[in-house]
Amino acid sequence: MGTLLVNGTILNAADTTAAEVLIEGETIVQIGRNLPREGHRVMDATGKYLMPGGIDVHTHLDLPVTATSSSDDYETGHRAAAFGGTTSHIDFVIQSRGGSLKQAMDTWHAKAAGKAQIDYGFHMTIIDLRDEVAQEIPSMLDEGITSLKLLMAYKGALQVDDQTMFRTMKIAAEHGMLVMVHAENGDAIAELVAQALREGKTDPVYHALTRPAVLEGEATGRAIALATVTHCPLYVVHMTCEDSIRQLQRARQQSLPVMGETCIQYFFLTADDLKRPDGAKFVCSPPIRTAKDHEVLWRALRDQTLQVVSTDHCPFWYKGGVNGRLPGKELGKGNFSKIPNGVPSLEDRLKLLWTHGVHTGRISPNRFVELNSTNPAKIFGLYPHKGSISVGADADILVWDPHKRETISAQTHHMNVDYNIFEGQVIEGAPVAVFLRGNQLVDGDQWLGKPGNGQFLRRAPNAPVL
Amino acid sequence: MGTLLVNGTILNAADTTAAEVLIEGETIVQIGRNLPREGHRVMDATGKYLMPGGIDVHTHLDLPVTATSSSDDYETGHRAAAFGGTTSHIDFVIQSRGGSLKQAMDTWHAKAAGKAQIDYGFHMTIIDLRDEVAQEIPSMLDEGITSLKLLMAYKGALQVDDQTMFRTMKIAAEHGMLVMVHAENGDAIAELVAQALREGKTDPVYHALTRPAVLEGEATGRAIALATVTHCPLYVVHMTCEDSIRQLQRARQQSLPVMGETCIQYFFLTADDLKRPDGAKFVCSPPIRTAKDHEVLWRALRDQTLQVVSTDHCPFWYKGGVNGRLPGKELGKGNFSKIPNGVPSLEDRLKLLWTHGVHTGRISPNRFVELNSTNPAKIFGLYPHKGSISVGADADILVWDPHKRETISAQTHHMNVDYNIFEGQVIEGAPVAVFLRGNQLVDGDQWLGKPGNGQFLRRAPNAPVL
Amino acid sequence: MGTLLVNGTILNAADTTAAEVLIEGETIVQIGRNLPREGHRVMDATGKYLMPGGIDVHTHLDLPVTATSSSDDYETGHRAAAFGGTTSHIDFVIQSRGGSLKQAMDTWHAKAAGKAQIDYGFHMTIIDLRDEVAQEIPSMLDEGITSLKLLMAYKGALQVDDQTMFRTMKIAAEHGMLVMVHAENGDAIAELVAQALREGKTDPVYHALTRPAVLEGEATGRAIALATVTHCPLYVVHMTCEDSIRQLQRARQQSLPVMGETCIQYFFLTADDLKRPDGAKFVCSPPIRTAKDHEVLWRALRDQTLQVVSTDHCPFWYKGGVNGRLPGKELGKGNFSKIPNGVPSLEDRLKLLWTHGVHTGRISPNRFVELNSTNPAKIFGLYPHKGSISVGADADILVWDPHKRETISAQTHHMNVDYNIFEGQVIEGAPVAVFLRGNQLVDGDQWLGKPGNGQFLRRAPNAPVL
Amino acid sequence: MGTLLVNGTILNAADTTAAEVLIEGETIVQIGRNLPREGHRVMDATGKYLMPGGIDVHTHLDLPVTATSSSDDYETGHRAAAFGGTTSHIDFVIQSRGGSLKQAMDTWHAKAAGKAQIDYGFHMTIIDLRDEVAQEIPSMLDEGITSLKLLMAYKGALQVDDQTMFRTMKIAAEHGMLVMVHAENGDAIAELVAQALREGKTDPVYHALTRPAVLEGEATGRAIALATVTHCPLYVVHMTCEDSIRQLQRARQQSLPVMGETCIQYFFLTADDLKRPDGAKFVCSPPIRTAKDHEVLWRALRDQTLQVVSTDHCPFWYKGGVNGRLPGKELGKGNFSKIPNGVPSLEDRLKLLWTHGVHTGRISPNRFVELNSTNPAKIFGLYPHKGSISVGADADILVWDPHKRETISAQTHHMNVDYNIFEGQVIEGAPVAVFLRGNQLVDGDQWLGKPGNGQFLRRAPNAPVL
Repeated sequence: MGTLLVNGTILNAADTTAAEVLIEGETIVQIGRNLPREGHRVMDATGKYLMPGGIDVHTHLDLPVTATSSSDDYETGHRAAAFGGTTSHIDFVIQSRGGSLKQAMDTWHAKAAGKAQIDYGFHMTIIDLRDEVAQEIPSMLDEGITSLKLLMAYKGALQVDDQTMFRTMKIAAEHGMLVMVHAENGDAIAELVAQALREGKTDPVYHALTRPAVLEGEATGRAIALATVTHCPLYVVHMTCEDSIRQLQRARQQSLPVMGETCIQYFFLTADDLKRPDGAKFVCSPPIRTAKDHEVLWRALRDQTLQVVSTDHCPFWYKGGVNGRLPGKELGKGNFSKIPNGVPSLEDRLKLLWTHGVHTGRISPNRFVELNSTNPAKIFGLYPHKGSISVGADADILVWDPHKRETISAQTHHMNVDYNIFEGQVIEGAPVAVFLRGNQLVDGDQWLGKPGNGQFLRRAPNAPVL
Repeated sequence: MGTLLVNGTILNAADTTAAEVLIEGETIVQIGRNLPREGHRVMDATGKYLMPGGIDVHTHLDLPVTATSSSDDYETGHRAAAFGGTTSHIDFVIQSRGGSLKQAMDTWHAKAAGKAQIDYGFHMTIIDLRDEVAQEIPSMLDEGITSLKLLMAYKGALQVDDQTMFRTMKIAAEHGMLVMVHAENGDAIAELVAQALREGKTDPVYHALTRPAVLEGEATGRAIALATVTHCPLYVVHMTCEDSIRQLQRARQQSLPVMGETCIQYFFLTADDLKRPDGAKFVCSPPIRTAKDHEVLWRALRDQTLQVVSTDHCPFWYKGGVNGRLPGKELGKGNFSKIPNGVPSLEDRLKLLWTHGVHTGRISPNRFVELNSTNPAKIFGLYPHKGSISVGADADILVWDPHKRETISAQTHHMNVDYNIFEGQVIEGAPVAVFLRGNQLVDGDQWLGKPGNGQFLRRAPNAPVL
Repeated sequence: MGTLLVNGTILNAADTTAAEVLIEGETIVQIGRNLPREGHRVMDATGKYLMPGGIDVHTHLDLPVTATSSSDDYETGHRAAAFGGTTSHIDFVIQSRGGSLKQAMDTWHAKAAGKAQIDYGFHMTIIDLRDEVAQEIPSMLDEGITSLKLLMAYKGALQVDDQTMFRTMKIAAEHGMLVMVHAENGDAIAELVAQALREGKTDPVYHALTRPAVLEGEATGRAIALATVTHCPLYVVHMTCEDSIRQLQRARQQSLPVMGETCIQYFFLTADDLKRPDGAKFVCSPPIRTAKDHEVLWRALRDQTLQVVSTDHCPFWYKGGVNGRLPGKELGKGNFSKIPNGVPSLEDRLKLLWTHGVHTGRISPNRFVELNSTNPAKIFGLYPHKGSISVGADADILVWDPHKRETISAQTHHMNVDYNIFEGQVIEGAPVAVFLRGNQLVDGDQWLGKPGNGQFLRRAPNAPVL
Repeated sequence: MGTLLVNGTILNAADTTAAEVLIEGETIVQIGRNLPREGHRVMDATGKYLMPGGIDVHTHLDLPVTATSSSDDYETGHRAAAFGGTTSHIDFVIQSRGGSLKQAMDTWHAKAAGKAQIDYGFHMTIIDLRDEVAQEIPSMLDEGITSLKLLMAYKGALQVDDQTMFRTMKIAAEHGMLVMVHAENGDAIAELVAQALREGKTDPVYHALTRPAVLEGEATGRAIALATVTHCPLYVVHMTCEDSIRQLQRARQQSLPVMGETCIQYFFLTADDLKRPDGAKFVCSPPIRTAKDHEVLWRALRDQTLQVVSTDHCPFWYKGGVNGRLPGKELGKGNFSKIPNGVPSLEDRLKLLWTHGVHTGRISPNRFVELNSTNPAKIFGLYPHKGSISVGADADILVWDPHKRETISAQTHHMNVDYNIFEGQVIEGAPVAVFLRGNQLVDGDQWLGKPGNGQFLRRAPNAPVL
C-alpha cells in the first residue's frame, strides 16, 4: 500500500506539473495522471503545491559556546524544522583544539542519537590544522562528510589564519570536498570590539558597529582569492551585504568555482533593531545590516549570484538561566561582546521566503524550491535522493498551501526559545502536511514524528559547483 | 496503446531522473519505475538520455530578401531541424512597408501550410509603425503571437528609429507581450559600409570590419534603456560579443526585465574565417567575432546572463542561381554588402552545444536542456506544453545518445544548402530517436515524418522574465 | 609701468606659490620674490590667492529660442561673468536649418560686436549636415573655431540622428577638432512628453519626469560608442547623473578619448524644486536630478572622471514679457513643454564651487583652478595664453579672497534676470579684483570694464584629451 | 651671483612655460622673460625642458638582507640617481624585531652620514608592534618621518598580521601619517613556495609562479578595507597587475583615501624573462608579470588611478661574493627562494618613462613631471620645497634634452651592480645637467657632486591624499 497525492501541482526547481504522486515505502515511485487509487491512502491536494522538503544546510543544534549551549537540540530543533517545512539539515561539527576530527564527529553523532526526527548531515569545522589533522581530512569522506568549514572571524577562538585556509583548500580540492567559510576579518573586529569596550560602548548595537560590512566584503574577497589559487570549490556562508555580494558576483562572472548563501533573517531586520531595549535578541554574526543590503540580497537571489537560503539557526534564550533554562542572551548584559551570537529561524525560513519572495514576484515558485531544497541537495551531495519530487527520490514532500495565513509568534512556534525575531509578522504560505521518506511528520498543527526516525545523511563527494 | 521508453535517464532543466516514460496519444501520461509494459510499444533507451525536444526561437525559413530567398522552406527546414533534435521553432513574420500585421502573418501561414513537419510559431517583425499598425498590435495575441521584433540595423530597410522602438515597447508592456531586438547601430554601420565601398574594400571580411562589436554593445545598451523606461520585457537576439554581454549583465544585476540569446555559430568561428576564399559562407549579422568573445559567451551561459541558445538559421546557397537553385552568396561577388546575410545551423545546434558545452564541463546536461528547450518554452509562452519531460506535457522527446560520434558535413546534413559552416567538425552526442507529440519523426538515419503534421503554436502572453 | 601683485599666493592647477606677479601690458612678465616696485602700480594681496581667470566653456548669451531669447547679451552677461571671476567664455553658435556655418558664425559675431567686455570664443552647433555643410566644417579652423556641438535631444528641432553624429565625428577626427554632445535620447523624451501632456500632466515637475536619467546615460554611451569607432575626441556637456558618469568612467578606464563636464547647478538642486510654485525657474535640460547624483558628481570631480565645471548659462525672465522684458518662463504656464529651457548661473559658478568644493575638502584649491580655468583652456585650445598664472600668459587674474562671505540674491547679482536659483545661499570665497589681459575689470563692487574691450578668441586645433 | 637658465621651457605638473629661471643660493627666486643677465652664470637651455628633480620614494640603499646587503650605498646610489635625474629619494628604515623605531632610524642615519650626495628622507618600516613601539610612533613626526610601511608578505620575517596593520593605521590616522603597504598574501605564498620546493621546482621562474597576481589583488583589497575602517590614508607600493589596479580603482571611485605607485620595471619585463639562464637577475617582489598587465599599468597612469612611478631600487650583484663584491644573486643557485629579491633601476626611471610614456603619447610631459616629482613631493610632505619649478622652491632642476639618445648598459651605468635589467634598450630623453638646491651635480657625463652634500629631508605630516 502506498500513499497517493492527488490534485496537487508538483513544484520542482525548473518544472511545474499538474500530476499525481505515488509514494511506496520511503520512495516516490510514480508520477502520472489518473493513477489507480485502490490499495493506497489517497490524499487530496487540491489548490496545493507538492514540493520537495526543505533542506537547511546551516544550523547549530545543541552547540556549546562560552558559558552555555544553543537551546534547540536534535529533538526540539527537528520538530520545529519539520513544522516549517524543513525535512533535512546539515549541522556543523566543531573540532576541539588539540582534538581529532573523528572525536568531534563522534561527539556530534552522540547528540543526535535517539533524538533525530528529520534527516541530518554534518559539515566538519576545522580550527586546529595540525599535520595529523590534515592527514585525517580525507577519511571524513568515508564518514559521509564532504564539506569543511573555516572561520575567518572569532580571533583567539575559532579563527584560522590564511595558511590554514590555504592548506585546507588544497586538501579539499584534491579530494572533491567543498570548503565553506565564515567571511569576516576577525583581526580587525577584535580591535574594534576592544576599542568600543574601552570607550564604554557596551550596548548590543555595538555588536553591529564593530563588525562593519566592509570587513565581510574583505574576507569574502580573500577566501575567493585563495580558492582561485588552490582551485578549490568555495561556498561562502551567511552573506549579508553589498560588499560581499559584489565580490561573489565578480568572481562568478569569471567562472570561478565559488558559491554563496544568505540566511532568511538578513532580508528583514536592520542594525537599528539592535538599538531596541531587547536588542540582544537580534545579535548574530555577521550582524544584521541595512535596508539597502536587503535589496542587494533579493537581487542576488534573482540574478543567481546566491544559490542557497539557509538559517544559521542558533537559538539562545532571551531570558535564560532561570526555570531550568540554559543561560542565554542575558549573559551579555553590560557587555555586548558576551551576548551569545545567534538567532532562531529554523522554523520560519520557507514561510517568510514564500511570503516576501514569491508573493511579491521577486522570485518564482520554482526558484523558491531551487533555493531551499534543490540547490542545497546538489551542492552538498544529497541529490538526487533529496531536492526533487522525482521518481526514485526520497519521498520528502511538502503539501504547501500557498495562501495559508499565520502570524509568527514565540507563543506558537515550536523552537525551544522564548522569542521570535519575526514576532507578529503575518505570513502567507505554509505547509499543511510534511512527509519524510514517506512518513508523515506533520498534519496541520499535529505532530506525527518520532525521535530516532531521522537518519544520518552520508553525502557524496565531487558535487557540482552551481 | 502507448509508447513506453525504458531504461533511459530523463533530463530536465533542473532534474535528472532514472525512470520510465509512458506516452499515450500526443502526451506524456506517466513517469515511473516498473510500469506495466503490456499493450505498449516498448523502446529501450539504455545508456541514453530522454530530453524534451529542442526549441529554436530564432529561424528564417523561406525568407525573402533582396534578390532571393533563404533556401530552406518549412518542409526541408523542418526535416533538418528534427534530425538535429529540434521539434519546435519560432519564425519571424516580417511586416511589409505600408502593409498590416495581419497581411504579413497570413503570408507566413501560407508558407507553412501543408509543409510543416515540426511545430512552429511566429514572432511579428514591425518595420513601419503607422498609427493603425500600433492599434493592430494587441490583436496579434488572439492569433497566438506574443512577441514583437524590432531591428536597430539595416538602415533604409528594416531599421526602426528609437521613437518606434519606444512606442512598440509601451504597447507591448501594456499587453503582456515581449519585445525582441536586433541590436546594432545601423546608422553608423551604413556610414562604415559606404566608406569601405568608396575605398574599394569589397571582400567579405569588410562585412565584419564595418560592423564592429562596439556598435552592438551600444545598441544593446540603448534597447535596455528604452525597456527600462517603458517597463517592457526585452529579449536581445543573437548576442555575439563582450560589449553587449556586459550591457546585459549590468542590467540584469539591477533586476531589469531583460534577457538575451546567442546563436550556436558565435561560439566557434572568428572574423578571420571571412578572409578565406569562401568567406562569403560565413557572412551573417551581427558578424562572427573573436576567440575572446567565444569565452565571454561561454561564461555568460554559465553565469546565467544568457537564457537561450538559438540559431538565426537563414541559409543561402554558396553557389546559387544554377541547377534550379535560388540565387545565393554569389550575389555579393565584388561587393560584400550584397552578400545575403545568414548562415545555416538549424540542424547542428544541439550536437555542437553538447559536444563543446557538456563534454567540456562548461555547462551541465541540465543547463543544456534549459538553454535549448525549457527556457525558450517559458520565455515564449509555450510552457508547460513544451520544454519539459513531464506528465501532461506534449510528448516531444529526444532519445539522446551522449556518445554518438558524427562528422558534420554538407554531404550528409539535411539542410537544403550546399555547405556547412562546421564542415568536418566531429561531434559527440546526438539524437537517435525523435518524437513530436508522440509521433516518431526520426529513427537513426531514417525519416518518419510527414509534411502537414507540424502544428502552429498559439502562444500565451505574460510569459515570465527569466 | 606695470602692475605688481604682492603678498599673494599664486594658485595654479598643480602648484601653489607664495610669490609676486608682475604684469606689463596684457601679459604676465615676471614671477618672483622681492621684485623691484618702482614704476609699477603695486597691489597688495595679503591673505589672497592669485588665480587665473575663470573660463566658462558653456554659455548661451542672446540665444534665440521659440518665442523669445535668453535675457543676457554680450554686455550684461560679460559684466556678470566678470563679477563672478569668469574672464573668458565660449558660446554656442547655432546653425540655421538650410543655412551655412559661416552665416551662423557671422550672426554671432554681430551679437558680440561692440558689446563684449570679456574674451569670448565660439563653438559651432551643427543641426543640418548637408554635403556642403560637411565640406564647410574644416574652414571653421581658419575662423578660430575648433569645436563642434551636436544635440541628441530636441526631436524635430535641434536633434541630429546617429548618421549625422557619425559623419561629423569622422570629419572632426580628421581635422583635429573636438565634438561636444548634448546627450539625451530625444526620441524617447518626445514620446514621454507627448504622453504626459495627453494625460494632463502639465506642471513644471513633468519636465524632469519626462527626461529620466537613464535616457541621459543611454545617449552618453551612444556618443562614446560612435567616438570610439571614429577615433574622435568627445566632450560630453552638462552631465548630471550616475547613469552618464558611469558610462564616461568606464570609457576613460579604457583610455578612450572622451571627456566630460558638469554644470554648477547640478550639484545643488533636486527635481523636487520643480514642484515649487515657482518651479519653472529651475527648468533646464538635462533636468536637475537627485541628492544621490550630487554625490556622484562630487566624486567624479575628485577621481578625474570629469574635467570641467561650466554653467550652461541660459537665463530667461521668470516674469517676462512686461516692463520691456523679453518673454520668459511664463510662456510655459499650463504646459511645461513650453517653458524656455535654461537657468542663470554664469556669475555664481566659482563662488559656489569654492564654498562647497574647497571649503568642504572635496577638492583642493589647485583642482578648483584646474576645473574652472586650466582644463577648459587646454581642452579648447586656449592654453597657454589662458588658464594659468605663468610668465607669458595673458594677465587674466583673479585676486581671490577665500573668506569673503556673500549672500547670493537676484537683488544684488549682475545677471539680467529677475531671479537666482541659489537665492539666499551664503557663499564663502569670491574675487575682490579681476583682471583681463592686464586691465582691471572689477574692483570690489565696482565695475571698471568697457563694452568692446572683450576680444574674440581664435582657438588652436589638436588640443589634448585630458 | 646666481645662475640664470635661459631659452628653456619650464615643465611643471600642470603648466608649460617658455621663461627664464633665476637661481640664487639654493632657491629659485625669479621666473620671467628678459631677466637681467649681469652678475649671473647664464646657462643656455635652448631646445631643453627645465623640470623639477625626480623624487624616488621607494629605494633600498645599503639594505641588509639574509646573507648580504644591497650593493648600492648612499654614495654610489646617490650618484647613479642623479645621473638619471633623481635628486631626492626616500629610503626605508627597517625596525629590528625587539628593537625600537629610534634605534632603527639611528642605524639608517649612520648609513647616510658623510656619504649622501642627493637629498634623502626615511619611511619607517614596522615589523614588531609591541605596545611601546605603538607609543613610539608619533615621536617619528618630530624626526621628520611621516610615513609608516607594513609588509603583508615575507611570512616569518617582515610580515605583519591584520591586527598589527589595523592598529598601525589607527595610530597613523590620528597623527596625520601615511601608511604604505607591500600587498601580497604572504601566508599563501609561503605555502606555494614550500610546495614548489618539495616538488623540486627550484628555478627562478618559480619565484613568479609562486606569487600569482591574484594574491597581490587580494592583499591590496584587504589593505584598502582596513584603511576604510580606520580612515587612514593608504599608499600601496609597487603595484604590478590588473588584479590590484582594479581594487584601487574601485576604491578611488568611492572617494576612499587610497593611492598607489608602480615601479618602472613593471612596464617592461615579463615573467618569461625569469626563464632565461640569467633569470635570477629579474627576481623581485612582487614579481614581473605579463604584457597584459603592462597595458593596465599604462592606463592606470593615464586615468589617474596611480599617482607615482618609483623604482623599489634594491640591487644585488649577479655574480657576487667575488672580487670584493658582496654576495648576490648567486645565493639562490638551486633554490629560487634564496635569491635576494630586488632589481637595480634607480638610474633608469625617468629616461624609460619619457621614452615609452611621453614619446608614445601615453602620457603628457606634464603628467611625467607629476608622476616622478610633483605627486611624490605632495604625498610625502616635501611640497612646495620639492616637486616644482616655482619661485621659492629648492633649485632642484633638470635640464632635460627630450631627444638625447642613449643605450642603457651595465657598462656605462653608475649603479654599483654588474648588470642592468634594461640592457641594450635605446632611450630617447635624458638630463644633460642636474642641479640640487642650486648646486650642479651633473654636467653631461661629468660628476660634480660631493659626498656629504645631500641633506636629510624632514617631512611634514598631514599631506594631502591625491
